[in-house]
Amino acid sequence: MKINNIPFRTIWLHPENERIVQIIDQRHLPHCFVVADLKTLEDFEMAIRDMLVRGAPLIGSAAAYGIYIAALSAVAPQFMDLPQFDEKIREAAARLKATRPTAVNLVYAVDRVLAEMAVGKSIVEQIAQIRQTASDITEESVAHCRSIGEYGLKLIEAIHERKIKLKLPSTVGRPPSTVNILTHCNAGWLACIDHGTATSPIYAAHDRGIPVHVWVDETRPRNQGASLTAFELKEHGVPHTVIADNTGGHLMQHGLVDMVIVGTDRTTRTGDVANKIGTYLKALAAADNGVPFYVAVPSSSIDWSLRNGLTDIPIEQRDPTEVHFIIGLDEKTGEVREVRLTPQGSPAANYAFDVTPARLVTGLITERGVCEASEQGLLGLFEEQSNS
Amino acid sequence: MKINNIPFRTIWLHPENERIVQIIDQRHLPHCFVVADLKTLEDFEMAIRDMLVRGAPLIGSAAAYGIYIAALSAVAPQFMDLPQFDEKIREAAARLKATRPTAVNLVYAVDRVLAEMAVGKSIVEQIAQIRQTASDITEESVAHCRSIGEYGLKLIEAIHERKIKLKLPSTVGRPPSTVNILTHCNAGWLACIDHGTATSPIYAAHDRGIPVHVWVDETRPRNQGASLTAFELKEHGVPHTVIADNTGGHLMQHGLVDMVIVGTDRTTRTGDVANKIGTYLKALAAADNGVPFYVAVPSSSIDWSLRNGLTDIPIEQRDPTEVHFIIGLDEKTGEVREVRLTPQGSPAANYAFDVTPARLVTGLITERGVCEASEQGLLGLFEEQSNS
Repeated sequence: MKINNIPFRTIWLHPENERIVQIIDQRHLPHCFVVADLKTLEDFEMAIRDMLVRGAPLIGSAAAYGIYIAALSAVAPQFMDLPQFDEKIREAAARLKATRPTAVNLVYAVDRVLAEMAVGKSIVEQIAQIRQTASDITEESVAHCRSIGEYGLKLIEAIHERKIKLKLPSTVGRPPSTVNILTHCNAGWLACIDHGTATSPIYAAHDRGIPVHVWVDETRPRNQGASLTAFELKEHGVPHTVIADNTGGHLMQHGLVDMVIVGTDRTTRTGDVANKIGTYLKALAAADNGVPFYVAVPSSSIDWSLRNGLTDIPIEQRDPTEVHFIIGLDEKTGEVREVRLTPQGSPAANYAFDVTPARLVTGLITERGVCEASEQGLLGLFEEQSNS
Repeated sequence: MKINNIPFRTIWLHPENERIVQIIDQRHLPHCFVVADLKTLEDFEMAIRDMLVRGAPLIGSAAAYGIYIAALSAVAPQFMDLPQFDEKIREAAARLKATRPTAVNLVYAVDRVLAEMAVGKSIVEQIAQIRQTASDITEESVAHCRSIGEYGLKLIEAIHERKIKLKLPSTVGRPPSTVNILTHCNAGWLACIDHGTATSPIYAAHDRGIPVHVWVDETRPRNQGASLTAFELKEHGVPHTVIADNTGGHLMQHGLVDMVIVGTDRTTRTGDVANKIGTYLKALAAADNGVPFYVAVPSSSIDWSLRNGLTDIPIEQRDPTEVHFIIGLDEKTGEVREVRLTPQGSPAANYAFDVTPARLVTGLITERGVCEASEQGLLGLFEEQSNS
């Protein structure tokens, strides 16, 4: 997608030095646009843990490229024997998997790199294969996001057509047939490689001239909505309004939300959805007001080994300083500053995700189509997982 | 209640000059403690509109004292004739009522001052009466809050006793019989004159040695939870943890919340509850998880004229800058600064309240006891309103 009219992805190999991976350091958005170089395994661990890159699909790609860089950085691989190299790769895989606990894409990507390693081949060939797998994971992610956009587009079109027939009065200067979509956190292209998951149908609709307007939950405590989703929608020209996370229920009570689309960090085979903390509250409000609640799920975010999201998905607890402090732009000086929000001496807790039970989810938008949030629904699209 | 061990109220007459009303300017909490002097009607309008004072009961008291100061400041009242004075008072009343739309206490207090005016008496006597009514409203508010504390205490005690019998394992260093209470926004003593509404049962329980722990919703966009509720609980020594507004549902899903207590800005005779935006989302989560959801309602917050909260209670929309910008303490310099959170060019919306339908409310804690959130429940305690 574009930033200031220049097409970008969130992660790419340095065009002049393939021993360096480049990323958009998302900690500085929306106030500064910073590209960071990742050159060592430690750089990747830090980038994932400290959320320079974040979002389940992007974490997966970053971890895969992390193994590639770890393989390259293994000291003088030409003099290392294969068991030593293997050992290095397995250590890197374990360290990358330990960076964050909730997103299943991390496990998926790392395990896939290991599974596709060119067993028995030379170290040089192995490294080439790791790089190929990282690239495959990344390109597949882009293709899946694009496909989710096409399937989700149909849902938006249907609402748009229904609203045209209703001949509603115009509100707040937007055409009355505008589809108002609420999203939480950033499941945009910045969370992926391109297009996004939850935003992909939105971009697809907007690009085809269907009037859409997005209610952007700011998404405390890290404000990925206010800082990332608002930024990417604005750069792409999609009408949107930032709201406090508290607001969605009120909007739904008053008919101001036509649908909710969110992403997911891990979805069970039964359709329970782990996503950014607060998603569950929006799902409850959607159910209470008859607003359809969709989750955009690339298959890399499905954990086929789990049946009960509430008991089985580990929920990351992050540093309470993310609740105590917030970063923003001091417009008087033009500097980005951190300020304290809580009284000194008041403790805080920082749960990063919650689980929305399948019963509250209207449908899952996958790269193979839209299905019911249930094992039956998912297996209807991913039959090959029947015996997994 | 106490700040740094010194007893305070939120509003009082200047001890040496009864032409000045003093308040805690709550915009500066928790980082600075500032007392402001209000000397003119304009000062009061600004103080209510810009939220130097906030919270339904405190707004009521402030408005009553605002009329008193307006009466005093009427130019040379001894030379003014009664109709002119009356006119001044009615103008002041209208201006104060227009400062904020949602809290019914504002209307209640202003109308009561007008109704109790010493018709036919001298201007000096009239002013004395206005002052008396303002004082009565204030003292009644304190008494109502104290009484709400006693009734709410019984609910907390019952949960505490049940948890003792369950012989639960200890969690996070707190006794296993600790009652975990979630609250939203600040319905504490800072929202009132003393004790608070939602916090009054909490202070009562804590003071009697019942172990309580409060989950404090930070309450975006103005962060009254993080800045005011956390501050007053900390100053009083009540264990608490600040959380992002998104967190309550997850905590309830995992049995970490025993009850919710919130305040209200206006409750209908049928038990629909207008309170800070986001309250409805917590009520939905409480209902979904079988967590009791109580609202502390002094009768001054009941609007007996309304039956349908969702359609009939006006919801204030505040300036979007409250979503775009946030104020906090720059610990590097010790200064309080405002920083921007959203990208320049992204619009924001700022709905200040939402309405929780009575069906989601377990009970209303009033100064006369606890009742069902229904017309029947409320009239059982306030029979005199049967024909209102």
